[in-house]
Amino acid sequence: MTEDPRWLTDDEQRAWRAYLRANRMLWAALDQQLQRDSRLPHAYYLILVALSERPGRRATMSELATLAGTSPSALSHAVGKLEAQGWVSRCRDTLNGRIVLATLTDEGFAELVAAAPGHVGEVRRMIFDRLAPDQVAQLAEICSAIAGEDPAWP
Amino acid sequence: MTEDPRWLTDDEQRAWRAYLRANRMLWAALDQQLQRDSRLPHAYYLILVALSERPGRRATMSELATLAGTSPSALSHAVGKLEAQGWVSRCRDTLNGRIVLATLTDEGFAELVAAAPGHVGEVRRMIFDRLAPDQVAQLAEICSAIAGEDPAWP
Repeated sequence: MTEDPRWLTDDEQRAWRAYLRANRMLWAALDQQLQRDSRLPHAYYLILVALSERPGRRATMSELATLAGTSPSALSHAVGKLEAQGWVSRCRDTLNGRIVLATLTDEGFAELVAAAPGHVGEVRRMIFDRLAPDQVAQLAEICSAIAGEDPAWP
Repeated sequence: MTEDPRWLTDDEQRAWRAYLRANRMLWAALDQQLQRDSRLPHAYYLILVALSERPGRRATMSELATLAGTSPSALSHAVGKLEAQGWVSRCRDTLNGRIVLATLTDEGFAELVAAAPGHVGEVRRMIFDRLAPDQVAQLAEICSAIAGEDPAWP
């Protein structure tokens, strides 16, 4: 396998396996904390966050799928649940009836504000309490190298 | 918000946002490549990988949920699909009928071997082609600080 020039080196393999493990543990911990303290799956929290950062707290369903990193079918299911809770409302664009807009309601925004401190505490506990300051800068650089610069952040 | 000592600093916020973006882009790219070239969602690929690394290429469903980082219900759905393809088989433990074991079949292993080079190429394209060698080492250290040492890797 090491003869294949496209195969990962030992160092890369080690980094990749560590990344997968860290990611799995992190996602499980974030989901557990939000479910326990706010009865909100992490995937739903990310949808509320994405809407909260948009002008008018509103996005088309296809924009929202990209922003929240979910498939259209999973998003549709999740937004249905969030709508039933009264945290998101949906409406059809009056000019183009094929476009569905999702809006974060005031109740949804209040839910997000209430859930945020516990969530941020868990992010800190799982990541930043475990890293030295130079590792925080390294993590930002590595992730920006992978994802490109953040258009919405200075 | 910055008055809350548990809130993220600007540097942490920058790193966390970059991590979320990188993760979202990476997962979308890996899923797209596997769906396109192997008709296999990334989540299913991770299940096949997890089984392939176990003794006898077999695990209980609850071990497998942990290893593949999925919820029990999502795993059950995915394994049902993989079983229908003939890539995984399930059986009940003869001593404890409440334990269900999933086994990677020879066909499933062949599928994994066929899918791996394209997947690894995408991991390289998305991550390692974009990082300097010292960043690869930094990534491994950062992720190990978050997840602890890998018991299955030297």
